[in-house]
Formats: sequence, structure tokens, C-alpha cells
Amino acid sequence: MSSVSPPVVLPSTDLARLVLSTVIEGESPAIANHSVRSYLFARLLADELGATPGGDYDEELLFAACVLHDVGLSPSAAGPQRFEVEGADFAAALLAEQGVPAEPVGEVWEAIALHTSGGIAERRGLLCRLTRGGVGLDFGREAGFITDAQASVIHAAYPRLDMERALVDEVVAQARRTPSKAPAYSFADGLTAERGTAPHTSRLERAATATRWAAYARH
Amino acid sequence: MSSVSPPVVLPSTDLARLVLSTVIEGESPAIANHSVRSYLFARLLADELGATPGGDYDEELLFAACVLHDVGLSPSAAGPQRFEVEGADFAAALLAEQGVPAEPVGEVWEAIALHTSGGIAERRGLLCRLTRGGVGLDFGREAGFITDAQASVIHAAYPRLDMERALVDEVVAQARRTPSKAPAYSFADGLTAERGTAPHTSRLERAATATRWAAYARH
Repeated sequence: MSSVSPPVVLPSTDLARLVLSTVIEGESPAIANHSVRSYLFARLLADELGATPGGDYDEELLFAACVLHDVGLSPSAAGPQRFEVEGADFAAALLAEQGVPAEPVGEVWEAIALHTSGGIAERRGLLCRLTRGGVGLDFGREAGFITDAQASVIHAAYPRLDMERALVDEVVAQARRTPSKAPAYSFADGLTAERGTAPHTSRLERAATATRWAAYARH
Repeated sequence: MSSVSPPVVLPSTDLARLVLSTVIEGESPAIANHSVRSYLFARLLADELGATPGGDYDEELLFAACVLHDVGLSPSAAGPQRFEVEGADFAAALLAEQGVPAEPVGEVWEAIALHTSGGIAERRGLLCRLTRGGVGLDFGREAGFITDAQASVIHAAYPRLDMERALVDEVVAQARRTPSKAPAYSFADGLTAERGTAPHTSRLERAATATRWAAYARH
């Protein structure tokens, strides 16, 4: 049950520490904190779905997928492909170097590559579903089952820091510098279109002020 | 070499005939013709890439993926998921009923589900790449290697019939009737946003008048 264990315990394996230090050192604090919160929310979602770590899913792989899901927005993974795919490639290379076998590496690749693909990720297995679900929960989507106590502890440990704006800023800046990163009708393309049209903010940012997490955004 | 065989030969197996009759009977002529042209262009793309039918890819699976890629826009596959996924589910069920094994069924599912996911489909194997590539060629993308003779024969056999407008009409109508079919920042969501904002046409439609195929659109 999610209420038994504190909601901010992170895996402590060598791989998990490497994953965490990669985003803490490579990403802005707003995006790094969002990435860790996404994992914590994904764990609560797994509990909610009755899915068991070590049985239904691998906690370390879920940690890697969630915590690295936006690594494509960092300078260390800023190639010409869309950020979801650059991030997936970066994560896959990191895991492979640490000895993770090809099949789970492929699952993490897919979970990161599809994390902005609503309606598709949910159909690609539990790791994909939990990764997109955890990210979505941090954007306030379908967060009704999260208790206020859980939300408070998570946001106190990993403050929001105007995450939505930081994230959209980076996605749009990448897309404007490198158009190949924003294929037509992709996530980056949609955000860039919204930023380029009145009222010049994305729905993602406007929605942030209306979610349950709005009260935490000032902290 | 693509110039050796006429570019409008379709596979003639029982499965291919069933696939073809499904779209001819179930979709508007504009979308059915687009679907068949997507296969023919995908074959030419395969030749261009040096990929061999029967060796690098299965011709029947490529036919199924291309010809059924928009079946989610037909009344027979109009469930609440995004049309790419409804179409993938429909195609997978059809192939499984015809005795196609689970693994190739899964490949066709993915090729259809990801056909609007630019930058991701290209990374998911040859069938995904050829399916999205064939569809893209029919929208005029990167069509430089197609000869005028090939384009003429293909368009004479399967006229364009204002395909772009017919397709966007259907995607947007579905999204407006059933919002779950247009997750935020999906293809359907982007088209719906464009249709809802001046000049009230999508980039997909406006681009159509500027592609090599514009001259065929009147036929």
C-alpha cells in the first residue's frame, strides 16, 4: 500500500545513483526535480493499479525510465532527433554500459521515446504506461488518488520551481534552433506553435495554474 | 530496380485481397486510394533503400500496414482510442483471424499505431519506417526520387480526390465528436487546433498545394 512506505524513497543501487547524478548534474533543477517526482508518482500509480515492484515491474528500470525521460533536453543529449528519441538513445547507452541486457534496455528506450505519445504509450506495456502515467501525474493529470500528504512530502523534497515553463522553454528553444527536433504534429511542434500564437503560452503552462499542484508552484 | 516492374502491381494473396476489399468497402474513395498509393510509394522507397521484398521485409505485411493504416478513420474501427490505435487494433485482429502469427501481427500494429509519429516510427524497424515513409511520400514528403512516369501511373490508377482535405475532415470530425481520440499534442489534436484557428485549414492541407502531387489533385 502506498501509505505504508514514505513516498520519497529512491532506489539506492549503483545504477540508480548514476541515473540520478546524471540528471542532477545535467539538467536544470526544475526539470531534474520534475523527473524524480515523475518516478515517485509512477510508484504511487503502480500501487494504485495493484502492480508490484520486483513482480509486475522492475523498480530500477522504472526509475531509469522516469528519471531520464527528459534527458534529451540536456546539453549531453542534444542531437538532431526529437528530444524524446535523443533521450531514449542516451538512456539506452547508459544502461547498456552498466551491463543491463538488451531487452530491458529496449523497454526503457520505448518508455522514454513514447512518453509524450498520449494514447500510444498506454498500450505498450506496464513500463511505458507507468512512465507516461508518472509524468502525467506531475502535470496534474488524473491525480485524484494521490493524497494531500503524499503530494506535500513529494513537493517538499523536489520543489516544482515553475517546471512547466522551464520545460516548454527548453523544448521550444531546441525546436527553433534545430527544426528536425520538431517533426510536424509532434509534441515539440505543438508547443512551438502555441508559443508562436496569441496568447503565446502553451496549454501545458496554462493548465498548470489549474491543477492540484498549482499551490506548490510557488515553493 | 523500381523501373523494371510496373509500379501498380498489388499482392494477390487471399490476405491481400481481404485487406484491399476492407478499405475499398469501408473507407471513402479518397482515403482508400491514399492508402493504396502509400503502399506503392513504400515499395518504391524500399527499392530506393536497397531493401528486398521476401528478404528484408515481407511484402504482404507491408501491404497490410500501408493499406490499413487509416482504417481507424472508418466506421468499422471508430472506438474511443486515437484513430491510429483503433486502426492498429482492427488490423491486428484481421491478421490474427487469418492465421498470421503474433510477432508479425505486432509489427503491423506498431507500424500503424506510429504512422503519424514523426521521428519515432523511423527508429522502430523497416516495416515501421517503410509504412510511415510511404504515407509521407503520398503527402509529397521527400519524393525527389520518384520519377514523373511512376507518379503518373500511380495517380492514374488511384486518383488523389482531394485526399488531404478528406483525411483532415475525418480526423477533426472524430476528435470533435470524441475528445478521447485527440490526446493533447497528438496528430488529431494538432489538426483540430489548426482547423479551429485562422486561416482554418491545416498545414497538411496547405502544404498539399505546394507538393509535386498538386498537379494530380484535380484529376
